[in-house]
Amino acid sequence: MDLKETLLKYGFHFESDKDTEVIPKLDKFVHDILNEDLGSDGGDKQVVPFTQIVMDVMRQLEGAYALICKSPYYPNELVACKRGSPLLLGVKETGDMRTDINVESDLSAEGHHGKPKEYYLASDANAIVEHTRRVLVIEDNEVVHMNDGAVHIFKLDSDKSTRLLRPASVQRGLSTLEMEVEQIRKGNFVHFMQKEIHEQPDSLTMTMRGRLIRGGEQKAKGILLGGLKDHLRTIRRSRRILFIGCGTSYNAALAAIPVVEELSGIPVTMEIASDLLDRQGPIYREDTAIFVSQSGETADTLQALEYAKSNGALCVGITNTVGSAIARGTHFTKAYTSQIAMIVMLALALGDDSLSTQQRRNAIMDDLYNLPSKVRDVLKLDKDMKELAALLMDEQSLLVFGRGYNYATPMECALKVKEVSLMHAEGIVAGEMKHGPLALVDETLPIIVIATRDASLNKQQSVIQQLKTRKGRLIVMCTEGDAEFMCPDRTCRIIEVPKVQDCLQPIINIVRLQLLAYHLTVFRGFNVDQPRNLAKSVTTQW
Amino acid sequence: MDLKETLLKYGFHFESDKDTEVIPKLDKFVHDILNEDLGSDGGDKQVVPFTQIVMDVMRQLEGAYALICKSPYYPNELVACKRGSPLLLGVKETGDMRTDINVESDLSAEGHHGKPKEYYLASDANAIVEHTRRVLVIEDNEVVHMNDGAVHIFKLDSDKSTRLLRPASVQRGLSTLEMEVEQIRKGNFVHFMQKEIHEQPDSLTMTMRGRLIRGGEQKAKGILLGGLKDHLRTIRRSRRILFIGCGTSYNAALAAIPVVEELSGIPVTMEIASDLLDRQGPIYREDTAIFVSQSGETADTLQALEYAKSNGALCVGITNTVGSAIARGTHFTKAYTSQIAMIVMLALALGDDSLSTQQRRNAIMDDLYNLPSKVRDVLKLDKDMKELAALLMDEQSLLVFGRGYNYATPMECALKVKEVSLMHAEGIVAGEMKHGPLALVDETLPIIVIATRDASLNKQQSVIQQLKTRKGRLIVMCTEGDAEFMCPDRTCRIIEVPKVQDCLQPIINIVRLQLLAYHLTVFRGFNVDQPRNLAKSVTTQW
Repeated sequence: MDLKETLLKYGFHFESDKDTEVIPKLDKFVHDILNEDLGSDGGDKQVVPFTQIVMDVMRQLEGAYALICKSPYYPNELVACKRGSPLLLGVKETGDMRTDINVESDLSAEGHHGKPKEYYLASDANAIVEHTRRVLVIEDNEVVHMNDGAVHIFKLDSDKSTRLLRPASVQRGLSTLEMEVEQIRKGNFVHFMQKEIHEQPDSLTMTMRGRLIRGGEQKAKGILLGGLKDHLRTIRRSRRILFIGCGTSYNAALAAIPVVEELSGIPVTMEIASDLLDRQGPIYREDTAIFVSQSGETADTLQALEYAKSNGALCVGITNTVGSAIARGTHFTKAYTSQIAMIVMLALALGDDSLSTQQRRNAIMDDLYNLPSKVRDVLKLDKDMKELAALLMDEQSLLVFGRGYNYATPMECALKVKEVSLMHAEGIVAGEMKHGPLALVDETLPIIVIATRDASLNKQQSVIQQLKTRKGRLIVMCTEGDAEFMCPDRTCRIIEVPKVQDCLQPIINIVRLQLLAYHLTVFRGFNVDQPRNLAKSVTTQW
Repeated sequence: MDLKETLLKYGFHFESDKDTEVIPKLDKFVHDILNEDLGSDGGDKQVVPFTQIVMDVMRQLEGAYALICKSPYYPNELVACKRGSPLLLGVKETGDMRTDINVESDLSAEGHHGKPKEYYLASDANAIVEHTRRVLVIEDNEVVHMNDGAVHIFKLDSDKSTRLLRPASVQRGLSTLEMEVEQIRKGNFVHFMQKEIHEQPDSLTMTMRGRLIRGGEQKAKGILLGGLKDHLRTIRRSRRILFIGCGTSYNAALAAIPVVEELSGIPVTMEIASDLLDRQGPIYREDTAIFVSQSGETADTLQALEYAKSNGALCVGITNTVGSAIARGTHFTKAYTSQIAMIVMLALALGDDSLSTQQRRNAIMDDLYNLPSKVRDVLKLDKDMKELAALLMDEQSLLVFGRGYNYATPMECALKVKEVSLMHAEGIVAGEMKHGPLALVDETLPIIVIATRDASLNKQQSVIQQLKTRKGRLIVMCTEGDAEFMCPDRTCRIIEVPKVQDCLQPIINIVRLQLLAYHLTVFRGFNVDQPRNLAKSVTTQW
């Protein structure tokens, strides 16, 4: 029997963002458990408690999920559970602002003062914060049971032989979300993505605050990474550094590889989290594994973290605290630039025992300090990108080429353009162009070439020349004042950006391209703030 | 003054496949050398010997090149030189078949027996072999001077202070090309690419001949890698293995990573040759760097080899001998599958001191042995791929998803489709789909999903389910007999392939997709054997 029919027959209703991936796995459950417990005649369902059935389901399920289960056979009851994916219980009670309460005793429908409570279940703090800031973070194998307005939390019994329900006391206190409701509003912007893009000077400042020590008469310039201070020596001795992430976070690490290698001298390996897991690639005690995730909840990255831990690697996480304004990002545009800045600071910290790189490090720190204002300058060129977007809006394809410090820039640009404007954009490392992709070049296909000043400039000039020879339709991103030099015959469209230290240049460069992706999407008539098919943060694995 | 005008003024004419990249670098030369030597009034040019001028040019040039220079001011003279890029001098003389001759004395216009000689200069043996099989491989900094039919070879004087010409005696003998003219003919096939695809059972057999020991009553099964035998212990002790390549060769290494990691236990890092150079990434004495190149002449890869050598790494080359049938490939379709087989054999050799993997290794060796016949079976399904190509011929975009052992398969498929059929195909690792590319999925965009049986099968099933939910237009490649299982509602188009050991599966899988790329190109009306904009082998860097 088809699962949906079975579910309907037994009156079950499952709610989940992405139920499609859970439902197939419930198939076994429906046949094994329901038939056994309830009898295939669909007898008296009340014999088995609802929580018991859900716990049986959980034992059968594989992979990560968060489920909210309801059934007409259990009216006024609701059971929620999770593994891997995040699940938050929001608690709203007028007047009671205590933040540390015993869940067992406090989660009754009425509060201490007899005030009624409201409960919210969600996978994301953003959905809860406008109702209440007090949340309980549900942990794996916990089961939330709501019955006639009262809430109880049980622990899934790990003893597989007995199938009895064991109500374990959950003593964890409620947490308070630090995000402001205001932060999730659009302010003066038309779209959240636009707001996020324009907030980057602030988010960069926030990222560097307390970490980038500007120095002065008495104090030396430097980087202060509180949590990592004690581990820097261990990291410096590791045989390699692995950066592990997905999507935009992976790109952020990719953008920062060269400076990490330069300042630490340690070979860096990039790993897409899902691929590391698929391959079960070797990781050893001598490795430092750095996990990059905006939300800290990306399922692939979390599982890769478990994997690396179990192999004895030193594991470091680069993430934006849950509840912070950045973590909220639908688009992670802010997170991308902040993560690059964060990894550059890590590279500076790793290199700060070396005298030979001191001058270089000082120069990077100076430019880090000025970065927010430079980004602000770039954001003023919004109109320019809007014009470019208008030119490109009807295209089917877009290629983006970069290399060296700007290896990641085309990848991230293409990812954003794909994600929001639904145009088939592809980022390609410029050095590979001649090994195949060059064939695509003709008079019609628009091509963005990142050619800002750094050690690769000569090679990028050759690339531009090659593309011109093939009559490529070029959009060249270059350093301010280089337009004439990069394209003397003025056949290319030029995007100029201010110059910063090479390793920070990708931060400047991507901002321009974020604006392009934004305007492209608006012109193409898609909903910027709801990318088709995509979840806000990817908390599932497949 | 514009360079072209300057060149015209001084009567120079430069011939090169890709003169565009050399010309900008000649700018400095034209102003510094010509003006100085000849006077800006363009006086008597004969004062300076032609070879002298070319050598001056060489001192100014950066990067890799091969040049043939002619000038009306030096009638009946021709000067050729190279650095990095390959240059061959073919010598044709009726009757004289000596293969080891003194160049200085033998390269006169008339042979020993007074027979006239013909000379050929080319960057590729394929261009020469139909005229003569006797060639002199010109080395870096050598200058070939033809004057009234006589040939002299000089060495560029490395003493920069004197600019005098020093004719160094070049004593190297001529080599004999081992390729047969027949090998570069199409035989019964319409196109070279088609022939290459269909020759893969043979090229795989050739690759394994003498290396894969099948074993028997007295002999153990095993792998014999002559050249590497003495280095295996060193490689086993290295702290990481780097695979370095470009384009298709890079993809071949990518396909073989999982088995190398599995059998050697050594972490593998992939490097695109040009990116390693752009980044100047750290490489140490404890590293083994394995260079993959079909031709052995890929400029990026060669330069990366120099770089790794100078950093003290153990360097290993996987390449097809110059002059071999495979090296000739326009499309490298044969080389891709052979290279994967070669790297799998390397993994087997690296792991052959481990008892725990013996069974696994034996299973891989058995399947390697049977691989050519399996590939032959797959090639019989040509008609099926032709039909699919007919369906897809008018598409603008194509996505290809794979993961794990088939991480590289979509990359190589997309590269080939781009290169020959000029369709914007993109290979994406399936685990990253949910982090962005999923947005592109709709009813129109064709998507190939590689989902042959291996440890990732469950995840790929989820991927297919996700794509179906978004009404994706799916083409699923699965193991023979899995069609019903992978797509019970029969809404996907299915490509079935025979099952082999997981690490060899990419070899089987790509053959089907090569056929697709071939037929797509023919249907789209492009010249399969002359990919637009691309050189046969990329012997330049940019």
